[in-house]
Amino acid sequence: MARIALDAMGGDHAPTATIAGALLALQELAPEHGIQLVGRPDVIRAELEAQLAGAAPAVRDAAAQRLTVVEAAEVIEMTDKPSVAIRGKPNSSMAVGLRLQAEGQSDAFVSAGNTGAQMAASTFILRLHAGLNRPAIATLFPSAREPVVVLDSGANVDCAAEELVQFARLGAVYAEDILGRSNPAVALLSVGEEPEKGNAAVKDAHQTLAAAGGLNFVGNVEGRDVPMGACDRGPVDVVVCDGFVGNVLLKFYESVPKLIFGLLAKSGVTKEQLSGALKNLDYAAHGGAPLLGLKGVSIICHGKSSPEAIKNGILVGLRAAQSRMSDHIGQRLASTAEGATR
Amino acid sequence: MARIALDAMGGDHAPTATIAGALLALQELAPEHGIQLVGRPDVIRAELEAQLAGAAPAVRDAAAQRLTVVEAAEVIEMTDKPSVAIRGKPNSSMAVGLRLQAEGQSDAFVSAGNTGAQMAASTFILRLHAGLNRPAIATLFPSAREPVVVLDSGANVDCAAEELVQFARLGAVYAEDILGRSNPAVALLSVGEEPEKGNAAVKDAHQTLAAAGGLNFVGNVEGRDVPMGACDRGPVDVVVCDGFVGNVLLKFYESVPKLIFGLLAKSGVTKEQLSGALKNLDYAAHGGAPLLGLKGVSIICHGKSSPEAIKNGILVGLRAAQSRMSDHIGQRLASTAEGATR
Repeated sequence: MARIALDAMGGDHAPTATIAGALLALQELAPEHGIQLVGRPDVIRAELEAQLAGAAPAVRDAAAQRLTVVEAAEVIEMTDKPSVAIRGKPNSSMAVGLRLQAEGQSDAFVSAGNTGAQMAASTFILRLHAGLNRPAIATLFPSAREPVVVLDSGANVDCAAEELVQFARLGAVYAEDILGRSNPAVALLSVGEEPEKGNAAVKDAHQTLAAAGGLNFVGNVEGRDVPMGACDRGPVDVVVCDGFVGNVLLKFYESVPKLIFGLLAKSGVTKEQLSGALKNLDYAAHGGAPLLGLKGVSIICHGKSSPEAIKNGILVGLRAAQSRMSDHIGQRLASTAEGATR
Repeated sequence: MARIALDAMGGDHAPTATIAGALLALQELAPEHGIQLVGRPDVIRAELEAQLAGAAPAVRDAAAQRLTVVEAAEVIEMTDKPSVAIRGKPNSSMAVGLRLQAEGQSDAFVSAGNTGAQMAASTFILRLHAGLNRPAIATLFPSAREPVVVLDSGANVDCAAEELVQFARLGAVYAEDILGRSNPAVALLSVGEEPEKGNAAVKDAHQTLAAAGGLNFVGNVEGRDVPMGACDRGPVDVVVCDGFVGNVLLKFYESVPKLIFGLLAKSGVTKEQLSGALKNLDYAAHGGAPLLGLKGVSIICHGKSSPEAIKNGILVGLRAAQSRMSDHIGQRLASTAEGATR
């Protein structure tokens, strides 16, 4: 029997979405589990009543028996600073929901509210395990295989190697426990497979992870391996990165379906047209990336360039030369330096 | 009249792809422009002969008149270290092609070869403009609007704020000169729109860019804005990030079409089926990202969660509680600490 506390007030579409979600959950959860709706009782009850008005008797019964309302007078806004969650609004739905758990009256807390506040309040009220500096956020990325656990996906924007190593351990347990993966393959996100590739923190973390026991560390993976859910050496269950990279990647991925839909809508749905539309996602078609900052022009093409990509690289090189891009860069930098010394 | 030097030996499919690309380029370039094929003359000539065997007379004529072969005895392999390009193989096709330009005999250099070597050789032979620490790689990302310039996309894995500011200036000129964007909108990639969001380098860079003149700095953008080519404040032409982030993002994006094709193949091509397939790209459908490291369970849902996503968050919360994930994390960390002190 588990009691799940839901922050009924948290999220852009609360309480409508939160209450509706709770009702959906009730239908899927085994009947011994209950949900604690934490927030302003009047708001929660009014919303519940509205949503249950036309519901089937079974749903109404489940709600009556397995939903409880836990009063929390305050609400943390999406724009509140994280510290508000701890000091400013001690009776927020977040703080109350988390305290239920700290006091043994609840088994889990769920919120769609202010993430920074949730991190702060969770750390303050639930505390961290020994040996950790901060919590990490693990997100599931859809992949061609099974979903991949990516962490940290936003909690820690500046990470030392030590923290990346912590994430690896956290992620492995998550993959085992939540995803049911046995001996999950843990990889470090970098800019190349070789241990010596990466920024300073990643290179150090690689050394530690390679020497660490109790972890199925499969080495570095690159960005391309994440949507595949695998690298050359096999499937990947967990991808470790700092929270800045993870957050950028996550939000990027989020927005890709929107782009695809746009492309599909523009192109119709025949197979030929789809291929054309999706081809636009292939960055190699644009070809030729200039090395900027040189006194001259140097265009980098992809190692796997097709003739078409090589041709594009040449066209870019021409354009760079004709437009005198390099001169312009020199001028711009010079004028900046002048501005700075003025 | 411009002369473009092509590293005929560079790339996974050289010289076939490089020569074929050169021939394609000839047909698109105005007739006054020529291409210098740099590499082993015997290899280049044999390949040219083979490709021109069945070609139209116009192509053969163009090749005869506008292609020149420049001898370079050495070839840099994809696995060579960057330093090889400078010291180890002074007569590589890269070094020779770049020297042509340094000596005023060529206007641009194009290579699909070893990127690190190309960076090193380009910097050594062409040199950097004053005020720069290293070159940056700018890549075009396809977007729902026009392609977006993302830089650095791999040259500099550890960047100080100062370098990000340099990238902004480099990218703006690139967008103007190569893409024809007037007064290009330059944005800084971060984990939130607010100036105070980001890692240390990004926050510092934001301050400098906001105060800098001569740049249409539109503030921070998030990962989701990149595939859209725009943020809430309007179109974005240039996105600035460090080379670690840029490289991860680039390779990630590269692999997305592969994933989409896989999804399409599995689902067929009807509109309904496509919607279903693409829905799998929507990470919100997976719902509920746990905050890891806490003595307890705290699940983070997306601020824009649908009822379905909230429900999934609840299910994840349940699974976390039932599997005793948090205890397992504690145990794992404790055993690691023991291992370390042993």
